[in-house]
Amino acid sequence: MCRHYHGAVELIGRRWAGAILYALTDGPLHFAELKESVPGMSDRLLSCRLKELEKAGLVQREVQPGNRVRVSYELTDKGHSLEPVMAELRDWARHWHRA
Amino acid sequence: MCRHYHGAVELIGRRWAGAILYALTDGPLHFAELKESVPGMSDRLLSCRLKELEKAGLVQREVQPGNRVRVSYELTDKGHSLEPVMAELRDWARHWHRA
Repeated sequence: MCRHYHGAVELIGRRWAGAILYALTDGPLHFAELKESVPGMSDRLLSCRLKELEKAGLVQREVQPGNRVRVSYELTDKGHSLEPVMAELRDWARHWHRA
Repeated sequence: MCRHYHGAVELIGRRWAGAILYALTDGPLHFAELKESVPGMSDRLLSCRLKELEKAGLVQREVQPGNRVRVSYELTDKGHSLEPVMAELRDWARHWHRA
């Protein structure tokens, strides 16, 4: 058993974590945009998952100063490097959904 | 958001599910062998995950009749077709562990 694999699969499989990462593959999103793109997730759970993903080095938080401070979230290099895995999993899921 | 991807990532990410699938990539295992290969998992949780994975069509249960009935678990074609995804995730995890 590979403990690195185990850690990774449980991290991205945690409720909504995989969905958040997938939503960010198209570029940075504000909290509200992220919430819209993953329907059914509460604010609290979204914050919690974002913190976990930040801690794991997959997502980074960007604060844009201004009259109205805005916060956006984007994938780090480590997060982006998961894209092929996510794409392959998506293709697998689509294929077997049709089958 | 692709709901097929979402379903797949949450299924294999459920606690220990990814680890069970990974352990079965080398061939069928009996319940006790599976339990040994995924240390720290209770009998009850292992049974529960195996039932979920059977229901999702990833694992099949094989009963070998005889003086002492033995049950083994193995990946279905659908389960085997997840192997490239698991391998890629393992490589990703190893790479970033070293980094």
